[in-house]
Amino acid sequence: MRQEHDFIGIKTIPPDAFWGVHSARAVENFPITGHTVALMPELIRAFAFVKKAAAQANLQMGAINETQTHAIAKACDDLIAGQLHDQFVVDVIQGGAGTSTNMNANEVIANRALEHLGLPKGSYDVIHPNDHVNASQSTNDAYPTAVKLATYAGIQKLLTALAELRGAFEAKAGEFASILKIGRTQLQDAVPMTLGQEFAAFAAMIADDEKRLSESAYLMCEVNMGGTAIGTGINAPVGYADSVTKALAEISGVPVVKASNLIAATGDTGAFADISGILKRVAVKLSKISNDLRLLSSGPQAGVGDIKLPARQAGSSIMPGKVNPVIPEVMNQVCFEVIGNDAAITMAVEAGQLQLNAFEPLMGWALHKSLSHLCNACKTLQVNCVEGIVANEVLLDARIAESVTLVTALNPLIGYEKAAKIAKTAIANGKQIAEVAEELGIMSQADMKKLLVADKLTQAGALAAA
Amino acid sequence: MRQEHDFIGIKTIPPDAFWGVHSARAVENFPITGHTVALMPELIRAFAFVKKAAAQANLQMGAINETQTHAIAKACDDLIAGQLHDQFVVDVIQGGAGTSTNMNANEVIANRALEHLGLPKGSYDVIHPNDHVNASQSTNDAYPTAVKLATYAGIQKLLTALAELRGAFEAKAGEFASILKIGRTQLQDAVPMTLGQEFAAFAAMIADDEKRLSESAYLMCEVNMGGTAIGTGINAPVGYADSVTKALAEISGVPVVKASNLIAATGDTGAFADISGILKRVAVKLSKISNDLRLLSSGPQAGVGDIKLPARQAGSSIMPGKVNPVIPEVMNQVCFEVIGNDAAITMAVEAGQLQLNAFEPLMGWALHKSLSHLCNACKTLQVNCVEGIVANEVLLDARIAESVTLVTALNPLIGYEKAAKIAKTAIANGKQIAEVAEELGIMSQADMKKLLVADKLTQAGALAAA
Amino acid sequence: MRQEHDFIGIKTIPPDAFWGVHSARAVENFPITGHTVALMPELIRAFAFVKKAAAQANLQMGAINETQTHAIAKACDDLIAGQLHDQFVVDVIQGGAGTSTNMNANEVIANRALEHLGLPKGSYDVIHPNDHVNASQSTNDAYPTAVKLATYAGIQKLLTALAELRGAFEAKAGEFASILKIGRTQLQDAVPMTLGQEFAAFAAMIADDEKRLSESAYLMCEVNMGGTAIGTGINAPVGYADSVTKALAEISGVPVVKASNLIAATGDTGAFADISGILKRVAVKLSKISNDLRLLSSGPQAGVGDIKLPARQAGSSIMPGKVNPVIPEVMNQVCFEVIGNDAAITMAVEAGQLQLNAFEPLMGWALHKSLSHLCNACKTLQVNCVEGIVANEVLLDARIAESVTLVTALNPLIGYEKAAKIAKTAIANGKQIAEVAEELGIMSQADMKKLLVADKLTQAGALAAA
Amino acid sequence: MRQEHDFIGIKTIPPDAFWGVHSARAVENFPITGHTVALMPELIRAFAFVKKAAAQANLQMGAINETQTHAIAKACDDLIAGQLHDQFVVDVIQGGAGTSTNMNANEVIANRALEHLGLPKGSYDVIHPNDHVNASQSTNDAYPTAVKLATYAGIQKLLTALAELRGAFEAKAGEFASILKIGRTQLQDAVPMTLGQEFAAFAAMIADDEKRLSESAYLMCEVNMGGTAIGTGINAPVGYADSVTKALAEISGVPVVKASNLIAATGDTGAFADISGILKRVAVKLSKISNDLRLLSSGPQAGVGDIKLPARQAGSSIMPGKVNPVIPEVMNQVCFEVIGNDAAITMAVEAGQLQLNAFEPLMGWALHKSLSHLCNACKTLQVNCVEGIVANEVLLDARIAESVTLVTALNPLIGYEKAAKIAKTAIANGKQIAEVAEELGIMSQADMKKLLVADKLTQAGALAAA
Repeated sequence: MRQEHDFIGIKTIPPDAFWGVHSARAVENFPITGHTVALMPELIRAFAFVKKAAAQANLQMGAINETQTHAIAKACDDLIAGQLHDQFVVDVIQGGAGTSTNMNANEVIANRALEHLGLPKGSYDVIHPNDHVNASQSTNDAYPTAVKLATYAGIQKLLTALAELRGAFEAKAGEFASILKIGRTQLQDAVPMTLGQEFAAFAAMIADDEKRLSESAYLMCEVNMGGTAIGTGINAPVGYADSVTKALAEISGVPVVKASNLIAATGDTGAFADISGILKRVAVKLSKISNDLRLLSSGPQAGVGDIKLPARQAGSSIMPGKVNPVIPEVMNQVCFEVIGNDAAITMAVEAGQLQLNAFEPLMGWALHKSLSHLCNACKTLQVNCVEGIVANEVLLDARIAESVTLVTALNPLIGYEKAAKIAKTAIANGKQIAEVAEELGIMSQADMKKLLVADKLTQAGALAAA
Repeated sequence: MRQEHDFIGIKTIPPDAFWGVHSARAVENFPITGHTVALMPELIRAFAFVKKAAAQANLQMGAINETQTHAIAKACDDLIAGQLHDQFVVDVIQGGAGTSTNMNANEVIANRALEHLGLPKGSYDVIHPNDHVNASQSTNDAYPTAVKLATYAGIQKLLTALAELRGAFEAKAGEFASILKIGRTQLQDAVPMTLGQEFAAFAAMIADDEKRLSESAYLMCEVNMGGTAIGTGINAPVGYADSVTKALAEISGVPVVKASNLIAATGDTGAFADISGILKRVAVKLSKISNDLRLLSSGPQAGVGDIKLPARQAGSSIMPGKVNPVIPEVMNQVCFEVIGNDAAITMAVEAGQLQLNAFEPLMGWALHKSLSHLCNACKTLQVNCVEGIVANEVLLDARIAESVTLVTALNPLIGYEKAAKIAKTAIANGKQIAEVAEELGIMSQADMKKLLVADKLTQAGALAAA
Repeated sequence: MRQEHDFIGIKTIPPDAFWGVHSARAVENFPITGHTVALMPELIRAFAFVKKAAAQANLQMGAINETQTHAIAKACDDLIAGQLHDQFVVDVIQGGAGTSTNMNANEVIANRALEHLGLPKGSYDVIHPNDHVNASQSTNDAYPTAVKLATYAGIQKLLTALAELRGAFEAKAGEFASILKIGRTQLQDAVPMTLGQEFAAFAAMIADDEKRLSESAYLMCEVNMGGTAIGTGINAPVGYADSVTKALAEISGVPVVKASNLIAATGDTGAFADISGILKRVAVKLSKISNDLRLLSSGPQAGVGDIKLPARQAGSSIMPGKVNPVIPEVMNQVCFEVIGNDAAITMAVEAGQLQLNAFEPLMGWALHKSLSHLCNACKTLQVNCVEGIVANEVLLDARIAESVTLVTALNPLIGYEKAAKIAKTAIANGKQIAEVAEELGIMSQADMKKLLVADKLTQAGALAAA
Repeated sequence: MRQEHDFIGIKTIPPDAFWGVHSARAVENFPITGHTVALMPELIRAFAFVKKAAAQANLQMGAINETQTHAIAKACDDLIAGQLHDQFVVDVIQGGAGTSTNMNANEVIANRALEHLGLPKGSYDVIHPNDHVNASQSTNDAYPTAVKLATYAGIQKLLTALAELRGAFEAKAGEFASILKIGRTQLQDAVPMTLGQEFAAFAAMIADDEKRLSESAYLMCEVNMGGTAIGTGINAPVGYADSVTKALAEISGVPVVKASNLIAATGDTGAFADISGILKRVAVKLSKISNDLRLLSSGPQAGVGDIKLPARQAGSSIMPGKVNPVIPEVMNQVCFEVIGNDAAITMAVEAGQLQLNAFEPLMGWALHKSLSHLCNACKTLQVNCVEGIVANEVLLDARIAESVTLVTALNPLIGYEKAAKIAKTAIANGKQIAEVAEELGIMSQADMKKLLVADKLTQAGALAAA
């Protein structure tokens, strides 16, 4: 066992622990969720990028020496490679604006660096968590920068998952390109379309989201490294802010830039609210798509039934043979969770006071959940659902044959009121519209049937051209 | 024109205005929504109750004289009768914890009371808005008390509307009691039920809400009159708190009681968050019911189609004959609005600081909207939709005849796995289950048909009893 | 390795797994959060209560035999004792309305029961997960009942934590009973109070929450056991619903009752929205209290500074000696999370369709998080913060001596306008109010000082009585 | 009185009404809020742009004749000029995806156009609301396009208000550029900054919002004109979609473009969720700024007190001389309302089904409120608060002189641990840090005072350079 001290007193630390006194205090103070930062590998890697970049810039500025720099950098590389993540022992929800996670990172990196130098843990006169690993930094610039990098990484993964899900919808759009069906507005039968058009619209909705999310990712690239405690840069050498930002961009591969106003960038966390809002947008769309898939596949006998989802598991512990849309259902729930996370983030961002927002840990955790759960849900939706969807062609064909709503197509030829009369009469009498049109003396059955050909019905002007 | 002065300076007031300098300042300061407190008649009446009760208690305590008391009481009666509501000129969203509305009420009542005494407006040496109308009070007890009374009144109206809506569902439950249909879980065909059972469940859901809302209304009856500025009762005579509370109960007819801790009752507005949460519960249920009505009436040809909603208006500017479920749709939107209002109220309640919550005006306005819009939406849903719903009996009968899900009923007789096999085969081959059961050697068609009689299918044990 | 089959096909199961094919499918389908139901011990115990009660009722009804019943009951007791929780391998967020968790429970209990009978896992002809463990049940009654029991247990734990936190505030209220301070409304200096009154109000707020939460817990006691698939009770023996409910009450110790309308109770999950709304109410209050503690302890030199929180950890990686209010900060974040969970639950409840809500797993998970995190945060707030709070008496005394707001106390004696004049002048000239009152000829310094004695200032009428 | 008929029957219309039978039905069906579309002038103007553009494109396509076109265009110009807005009589919250508002617009424009032709109202054979005014359109393209144009207009107004508010903060930043103060993180005293830096950060936060809102406005420019009922363009002539979009851009001055997938653009309303999310971002920042202004101006004697807000009205009905931060308070409440509106919009967007979202009216109304209320709140915050803020220089100077947190500046020179020791000792003994540093033998008082000069403390490296 080794002893470490802080402001408050002395604390005994297990000999194999890379973390130190500050982490130990935090573990005592925040026994909240049982989930530790070890569950957030992107955040740990992001911290390693930040600390390595800071070490390089500090070397340039003369704030630490070469030995320290190389040992720190090597320890950071270990974290980037996935090592020692279990040493991040503080709770994901913690007070203190991320100080405990930053301290935890500083301690782990310092002790790993000391190990690389062949020194025992705790030899802080050689490499000190605060004086050297944290040199020229504050939690208040290091932590939000790391959260931004982690979020950026999560966004890239989600973009990939969205693109693959979109691809699955596009493939189905091609497969279903010639299958006619009745479109529905307000759940009531409307004008015809192809099933392919419907799936292409799903793909287009996702493509929109990809574009929006992709173009918003830059919000995570404006970092406040060099601002230190409140953005004034106190304690940091002249030139350090630019130097560390440049190093960070190189090391992380993320195109980070220095925020234009470091004080605003330190106190304001609006960028997290913004990204969360975009994720909420993604969620409402994916939820809407999942709702549609569940609705379109409802039945098999007493529902809408346009399509069939692949059977993935027994649907009921009591109703034999029942297959439920469990994959879209799990996507719905992830989307609801994302919307809930956005509410939490909104509260947290609004609650920031004066030069700092103390509630960044919740933002980081909520964004992590939103991103990773959406990513996972997209994958299962793609592989376990969309790719196996088949059209219920027999039913769709039957419905087109008897549909009243095709009368809408006649508006430009006979006017809204006559068309309405045909529709109303056909529904009342259970007759086909061609028959009714003839009975009402509006048009012969033969003439109408020539007009109501399928390929004229799903694009602008095709009917008029006839 | 008359001149009034305050802390800041002198202000010219139009001669016919019952409001005075404080209202005038507020009108300048809060040009936000364009909606004035005049749109909240329950709040104005509630203020009249409060001020009349305070006048009576103040008379008892010797804080004001008989002439003042009677004149103030008469002015309050005018407000209760619906007069002078247009004199409430401040914006519904205002800074200052309701001070401006309280001041507005004090000024209107003072000037109306002066008028009753035959004196010109502004003769504040006789009846002063603050010294007399507001005697022994602060905005911080008078305002939340008035908001609670107004909310209580709104709750009673909503309870009536819910009860009437429930009655409409109950009537339909009776009407549909013998109509069999396929129940659906996760939008997939499940076991049978009657349409009457489904509508009775809608009624039961609303009955639950009525019970819950009714039992929660007491939260609006704990008032902090007598607490004055921060709940310590400073400036109020000994015994005033009990006296004014008793008077208020008599005058308003609402069973108000004095809060057990006046300081907590002044600083904390959790009761509004609570009531809003209950209204949110009501909203999610009414929205769920509206969703179901829209889903059950989808079609007419390519949807679920169990029921038909009454046609209320042309459903499309382009598709002739289309009728949409516009009444449930408007209910959905009101429910979404209520959920949004709850989010706003949550933010406002959380944001209270130290001895007061400055954001009560938003709470009052949001609760007013939630209550009155829900009330109105219930009425139109009842009258313009539920009462005119008819069952689509032809379709329902046809579906029961061909349903595969009835096989579930056989579980207790033949076990889950054999039942599953029958169901799977029937769907795959498009055959009826009786036929398949015989082919698989599980049971003869004749035996099965004896078991699958409708009245055995919608209650516990009826089949086993056979 | 053993093989199990379902509707879809055959699946190889590891020999030591108590779970079976249905769980295996679910693991493949829902790789979402990485958190399994094993993290929800209250839910697992609740499932054991449900399955044991069902076995007893089934024995009574003759649906299963004695050997099966005893073996199942013994397996349930193992789960209640905390064994085999690691066998709950499905993700906490899952499609299918809880079917997978129910199946998982059925499989684990069946295989454990078989083990108790000395039989190999998978001997389902003796004890079958569906035919026997799940006899007379459906996911649709077993699952929501278990979630309700788990939530009820969580509520009891939270009530204990709230009571202990309240006790800590009450103790401080006693300790600070005679310390005068300036109350603040809208963050501006208002009338005086004691610090003890302020802490007593915190305690009163929590007491309100305890009362409200306690009286709302009955919502979790209305269960739909016996309703089976959609609440009609299909497949369950006559009398089973009452029998299983009675058994469940005895076994679990929770006063559960049969819901009055089982169809409504199956399709509607409004009770979860309601409880979540109450937890949101608790959260906004605890967040408000935390905000106040942070505000009151702000400083040490340039803030409000009425109190000092105990130092729990170094507050900054850069600013030496800085101590931050990390414990209230973590409570704030938990409260924001609870508010977010409520948003997610609201979405999920609203999204239920027809006879079932498919999104109950999210509700159960979100309620679990809200309850357990609030409980943990209350404990750390109590032990690591409130119990160590000290008053900053020197500063408080100094402020009372120079306060202008004490002039409010004079309203009943000299009227609002003269009092206002004294206050305005005192602030403008930086003089004490007694001095100004004399200069303005309103009252002698000596007379005023007699009135402005501390114990007259914090209760109703005390001044007037003088 | 004139008579009009629709699908359902005949309706008597007042002779002076420009609206017709469809509007009359809607008035009966949606008695919800009491607020009519007349309260949304931007939406009415947007409808006029849409209908005028459609008329021009229809003329080009030969769908209507020149007389009709010119009369319709002239009627639209009347609406653009602000005439006849009172003829928009349908409730702002309405079922039917905006059909009623579109019908209302069609009827008003048709009857106004007929008036311009010297014909009586109702001469629909000449100009028919549906056949001519609505030619080649559906509610489902005309309505969302109009809502987007109205929202775009609201965004432009808000951008102006934000820019002016930012200007006020920038002016104050200049004015306060040399005033030193203690920065605060987690409400605890941190390192020094200038008050000008703090106000410049407020300005920078708003500038960020302006940039983000401005670049997101393009989302409102992707319109689905020509898509008609479900985006397939049925009933619209070939080439019409491009033609009407071009005309609309010219007439409205808004750079509208045709959406790339008209079916997705008709069914999906994600763009509204997105804009609402951006407005929520604006709201959380403005709320945070308002919180800071209230906190910084707290006091006057027992608070933070760095600044003073201008007195705008008497702050209390009971506490004389009390001035409250009523203007920031009203901004807070507007921000909470915007966050609530976003929750409502989120629900509404998620609830869209298949080819249409029926809940667009709520989205339009909620966006209208968010935009206009934010705009109004920005104006009053600018004029009635920010422009009149003064620094409390005496207090700020005193605090800097005695501040312990300045010791942070010494980290790079003496290390974190020695600095911490100085800080801790200074607080414990109530001494100045220079004094303590000398006593501890770390540095002479004289040396330290040379280092702790104000202009060295608020920028990076300035101290090290010394």
